[in-house]
Amino acid sequence: MLAGFQGEPGAFSEEAAVQLLGEVRTRGFATFDALVEAVGSGEIDCGLLPCENSIHGPVARAYDLLYAHPQVHIVDETVHRIVQNLIGPPGARLEDVRRVESHPVAIEQCRRFLNGMPGVEVVAVADTAGAVREVVTAGDRARAAIGPAASADRYGGAVLAHAIQDEAENYTRFFLIARSREPRRGLGRATLAFVLAHEAGSLHRALGVFAERGLNLRSLVARPQPGRPFEYVFYAEVECPDRSYAESLVGTLGGPARLLGWY
Amino acid sequence: MLAGFQGEPGAFSEEAAVQLLGEVRTRGFATFDALVEAVGSGEIDCGLLPCENSIHGPVARAYDLLYAHPQVHIVDETVHRIVQNLIGPPGARLEDVRRVESHPVAIEQCRRFLNGMPGVEVVAVADTAGAVREVVTAGDRARAAIGPAASADRYGGAVLAHAIQDEAENYTRFFLIARSREPRRGLGRATLAFVLAHEAGSLHRALGVFAERGLNLRSLVARPQPGRPFEYVFYAEVECPDRSYAESLVGTLGGPARLLGWY
Repeated sequence: MLAGFQGEPGAFSEEAAVQLLGEVRTRGFATFDALVEAVGSGEIDCGLLPCENSIHGPVARAYDLLYAHPQVHIVDETVHRIVQNLIGPPGARLEDVRRVESHPVAIEQCRRFLNGMPGVEVVAVADTAGAVREVVTAGDRARAAIGPAASADRYGGAVLAHAIQDEAENYTRFFLIARSREPRRGLGRATLAFVLAHEAGSLHRALGVFAERGLNLRSLVARPQPGRPFEYVFYAEVECPDRSYAESLVGTLGGPARLLGWY
Repeated sequence: MLAGFQGEPGAFSEEAAVQLLGEVRTRGFATFDALVEAVGSGEIDCGLLPCENSIHGPVARAYDLLYAHPQVHIVDETVHRIVQNLIGPPGARLEDVRRVESHPVAIEQCRRFLNGMPGVEVVAVADTAGAVREVVTAGDRARAAIGPAASADRYGGAVLAHAIQDEAENYTRFFLIARSREPRRGLGRATLAFVLAHEAGSLHRALGVFAERGLNLRSLVARPQPGRPFEYVFYAEVECPDRSYAESLVGTLGGPARLLGWY
């Protein structure tokens, strides 16, 4: 089986793929778009698509892409803990670091740690795992990168400081997506997309469909419709024991709707 | 009046401040946190806080900060169009550009334009307006930055290409925040924060409060509670003709609630 993820080899998404699927072949894609297209075309068997982070909230682009690719289905999910590390080339020591490189989001997540390194230059780059690869390849012990432990393993880097993010509790939830709609485990969850008229009570009525049936709402994401600023597509994830029951909800939400997956 | 914004001078947020408030003194802050704290302490009169982008969705951190700072209130809002430009030093020409610098989000927004510049190196940096300042100051005509027109004005740069973002329709909505709760214009909008028990129907019941009263829901944002991954604080913005009516809703939402502003 070949599982895709967004990012460079050693990215958090690749860690999540291995956590969920065990020993699996993986392939990195430059963008979420390329990843979802590769799943939709059958080029790869499945993909790990981040849908939510416990600090930053929903990953908007993931929902837009699921909506735009009806041939792609959610078949499983996994929650992966994000642990940031300071990584240098082999033999590096924390006290010799003069320059730290990473993606701006990772830099932001490690603000307190970096504030404790006065005089160190902090440089934004495009990717965490890519930053680790660069730093390890360059072999300059004054340079370090912030990134996943998996990237230190992959590129032969040394972890100079572990778990340096400000918030200890930082989780990303990933959907496993595939062309087949067959659930991988069947946890009893369904995600539905629906469009509502912009009028008082329309969302209340749609959520009533779930409430009347005693279905617990796990998440609700509102996304602007492309080209119609501040009008919304809603994505609701509910606990739902079986697939046919989830399918029966599609016609009841008061607007165009689709089941994005039962898993 | 002194209005704060997050970013370097010439940032989109400063453009938005001038659009909303006209001729006003402005001060840039490094982070959203520092901006909200400066409003809360009275160091500045008001601040422009981005709450939603038409492509990327809600600005999660903005809602977290409003929740954490009860002395800060929403008093107005403005919608600002995001137009990205390629900006070089004076005398630069588009065909001489060999390196483009900007914040990763701005780079991502201009992917199609950049794909049409083969062989050009694209470099991630921490800030759009800061990238423009760097490029103009360096005076190297092979370097250009992606950023707001306001930053070209401020640093004396030349706009080499205008409106280069992939999506023509890209808007950011900003809250105007202040220590006083006095609305600036009184558009008839209210934003309420509330915490709900994680049980079937709780959100449906809360939204029923608005639906029964015919109050149109303008936006709904769910944010994880700090330290409690995947449990939520909800932020609902409703059309509501007067302040006292908005205040009367606080006790009716089925959980701890607060009015973040009527404006």
